[in-house]
Amino acid sequence: MIITVVGIGLIGGSLALALKQNGFAQTILGVDRNVQHANRALGLQLVDQIVSLEKGVEEADVVILATPVNAIVHLAPVVLDLVERQIVIDVGSTKERIMQSVAVHEKRGRFVGTHPMAGTEYSGPEAAIGDLFEDKCTVLVDVDKSDPDALGKIQELYKSLKMNIVYHESHEHDIHTAYVSHISHISSFALALTVLEKEKNEKRIFELAGGGFSSTVRLAKSNPDTWVPIFEQNRDYVLDVLDEHINTISKFRTLLIKKDFDAFHKMIQQANQIRKIVK
Amino acid sequence: MIITVVGIGLIGGSLALALKQNGFAQTILGVDRNVQHANRALGLQLVDQIVSLEKGVEEADVVILATPVNAIVHLAPVVLDLVERQIVIDVGSTKERIMQSVAVHEKRGRFVGTHPMAGTEYSGPEAAIGDLFEDKCTVLVDVDKSDPDALGKIQELYKSLKMNIVYHESHEHDIHTAYVSHISHISSFALALTVLEKEKNEKRIFELAGGGFSSTVRLAKSNPDTWVPIFEQNRDYVLDVLDEHINTISKFRTLLIKKDFDAFHKMIQQANQIRKIVK
Repeated sequence: MIITVVGIGLIGGSLALALKQNGFAQTILGVDRNVQHANRALGLQLVDQIVSLEKGVEEADVVILATPVNAIVHLAPVVLDLVERQIVIDVGSTKERIMQSVAVHEKRGRFVGTHPMAGTEYSGPEAAIGDLFEDKCTVLVDVDKSDPDALGKIQELYKSLKMNIVYHESHEHDIHTAYVSHISHISSFALALTVLEKEKNEKRIFELAGGGFSSTVRLAKSNPDTWVPIFEQNRDYVLDVLDEHINTISKFRTLLIKKDFDAFHKMIQQANQIRKIVK
Repeated sequence: MIITVVGIGLIGGSLALALKQNGFAQTILGVDRNVQHANRALGLQLVDQIVSLEKGVEEADVVILATPVNAIVHLAPVVLDLVERQIVIDVGSTKERIMQSVAVHEKRGRFVGTHPMAGTEYSGPEAAIGDLFEDKCTVLVDVDKSDPDALGKIQELYKSLKMNIVYHESHEHDIHTAYVSHISHISSFALALTVLEKEKNEKRIFELAGGGFSSTVRLAKSNPDTWVPIFEQNRDYVLDVLDEHINTISKFRTLLIKKDFDAFHKMIQQANQIRKIVK
């Protein structure tokens, strides 16, 4: 099988590595508008060859769109225009707008919307990791709109990566990822900014940053070129959960002001319930 | 050397393990008001023997106070009352109130206030880890008030754990740990509560929780019995940084409401500066 990866960064590059390593693909073609990215991806042997978008689609069995989500919205219908028998998937972190972009396309059946829920705070071809996806969850959306053979092949692809497949409607996916993933990023960005603002002495942050701070601000290193389009597309759901988050932090402030440490204790106990869910 | 650890949880237990393993201590005596904790610590071989506080102080060369910080404030002067030649240290996450509790004690010189900046989200004797402290930073406070021999011995103790020692005034320590450590915990507690509130379907959180969410809510599993006394003692500095944090998150909200994604991008780029400090 020939797989073409469009956008060879953290996610696209990791898919390229893993699908070649596990034998699902014999050949990986790479497409990247950024020439430096493309050359580095080739140098790192993430892809066998760099090709144009047109050639990449023509020669592929499966085309994977792994650019930032704003680019996917433009690319998805353009790529479907070029498709005969090929299957096209995207791996974006939002789904509703992307699925709308192909909703009435005559080749809609060849498209499968997916979101493999894995990543790190790093980006670019160098960030690619062969086992990034193992034992993680991937979401497939609006699967009744995809041709059965296309869907079947993509299920095989994700199973070859040892991923657990779950099925959502696209808007439902966006709500839940706003709750579970996108809000974590804003919380982490804000924490980093707060500490950088209050603690002007960077050496002191470095000294005092134990494992706790490091893990809580880890996501604050994430690339704005990836994340701003996600927040743009998922704005309404993110705003909703962000309001709840600000209210909750404000409750902690109110209890500190009132010195109501019994209620503070109870809130921490409630927060501890996350132990049941996240190991 | 005989070391007595008072409070054999995550920190006390980890110190006991490490100081026995590296040969700094020949014997570790354990004191714990909680009989179950004491028995489990003995069963796990964190300590050689469980003794009373009085016997523990009498037989020790160094006494380590590793209880929650509210208990340290009460214990520190009581333990100093029992001291002849022994050295007493505490390992609490706040310093100002603890140092005040011994400030005018006639044995003040035998006390060294310390804060090894290491931990996990777990607690109790089972959470003890032998290499918890390696390559981490430990803060020693108000060291001009300690006898030189006591200070020297405690510097040796932390060097034997391969820790980097930094020196602060106690109030300065509390300001900086509010900025770097304590605010991370509130942010994480609030994130866990927000997600638990919005996402009533726990299976969905489990499915969608990638590495990002897990690392950002990790601290939300922390024990309220440890953390409420820290927030109580460090309330004013925590309130100050919490205000800044709420303002910062609110800025992200405002930019989303206004759809000002250029400014949103700039804020993320600023947050990315944390890369320079936290690897």
